[in-house]
Amino acid sequence: MSILYYTLNNVVFTNFALYSTASIAKMMCMGAFTLTKRFSQDAFANPEDLTLARHHSSVVTTNDPDVERVRRNHLNDIENIVPFVLVGFFYVATNPNRDIAYWHFRIFFISRLIHTVCYQMPLPQPGRFLACAVGYLTTLSMALQVLFSTRP
Amino acid sequence: MSILYYTLNNVVFTNFALYSTASIAKMMCMGAFTLTKRFSQDAFANPEDLTLARHHSSVVTTNDPDVERVRRNHLNDIENIVPFVLVGFFYVATNPNRDIAYWHFRIFFISRLIHTVCYQMPLPQPGRFLACAVGYLTTLSMALQVLFSTRP
Amino acid sequence: MSILYYTLNNVVFTNFALYSTASIAKMMCMGAFTLTKRFSQDAFANPEDLTLARHHSSVVTTNDPDVERVRRNHLNDIENIVPFVLVGFFYVATNPNRDIAYWHFRIFFISRLIHTVCYQMPLPQPGRFLACAVGYLTTLSMALQVLFSTRP
Repeated sequence: MSILYYTLNNVVFTNFALYSTASIAKMMCMGAFTLTKRFSQDAFANPEDLTLARHHSSVVTTNDPDVERVRRNHLNDIENIVPFVLVGFFYVATNPNRDIAYWHFRIFFISRLIHTVCYQMPLPQPGRFLACAVGYLTTLSMALQVLFSTRP
Repeated sequence: MSILYYTLNNVVFTNFALYSTASIAKMMCMGAFTLTKRFSQDAFANPEDLTLARHHSSVVTTNDPDVERVRRNHLNDIENIVPFVLVGFFYVATNPNRDIAYWHFRIFFISRLIHTVCYQMPLPQPGRFLACAVGYLTTLSMALQVLFSTRP
Repeated sequence: MSILYYTLNNVVFTNFALYSTASIAKMMCMGAFTLTKRFSQDAFANPEDLTLARHHSSVVTTNDPDVERVRRNHLNDIENIVPFVLVGFFYVATNPNRDIAYWHFRIFFISRLIHTVCYQMPLPQPGRFLACAVGYLTTLSMALQVLFSTRP
């Protein structure tokens, strides 16, 4: 009676793969974005990186506001997107309803896009807080279903 | 001769899903805990967050001791729980002994609970160090078994 | 027509498990490395940790250059190795060509070893930047193939 969950023949898994990979790609963009901010602000964290700076008078800095804003966004992504993918992987094995699963994945991804826009514009609070909370609750909802399905 | 490892019919996978999801949920709690600390300490990292502060005289701060303690705990969780889940996923495919696997998962989860208590009380060292080391060695033990099973 | 991808009978998965676990083990070493630096520099981040310091006059510090260099390296690993493993997991389900997949995994792992050497020696830039970029593009290449295979 075993069913193959982890194949692209399973539409739940295919949607999970799509939105997870899109979320991770979004997270990886923050790394490239940090780099562009470091160059535009001449704000490098290591002495050997100063050879890349435009101004020879640049010094090592780890508290440039623009760079740190992107880095906090990146860390928040790691704190939220990585748990989503890991919990979602187990959630797929609970054989969830296909539409409910789809909306979990889609809502999470959109919440992270909105979170990033709120953080980088920046938009007034509580916009960023609410966007983060929606994604957080989506992951928690999947986690509860996994815990319910695997309880001893 | 292929066996389906990643289904809830496999008790090793079911236990892995249970303890992994519980560990990730514990890690996610640190995010909510950080938020409560930010509010109780009026310690916000972004200028736009100050509208949420109780005192209008609040300024941006990134070095409040109480907030930073929770954040270090959170980062330590990411550094340890994420590798546990990722390595554990491969470990399940090595078809480990069911009881040995179970104790790996259970010991890891308990070590992280103890680590968090030690960090947030805080309890005297080396309590926190030992709790972290136990979880670290559990993951390393699984990693060695994966490397042994997949070596060229 | 479903094929079992996530078993050690699938050479793509076996190689993925090998290089992912090796990369995660490398990442975990940064945690132990941070600890040795904290002891050698007497640079502890928590008041209760000072009982472990050699000098009774030690104070809490979170900006020791040697410790922070290892910690930045560790965080960069998290930002790059975790996405590699998560995206790689979906990539395996796209049934990639065995040799192309193998080189993705191998090149990524080697790029992270070179990145670590560049960071800790440290070697002159752009060595570290290029090593990081190679691993980043490897993960991005897998992500694009996943998105292409799972697009609606």
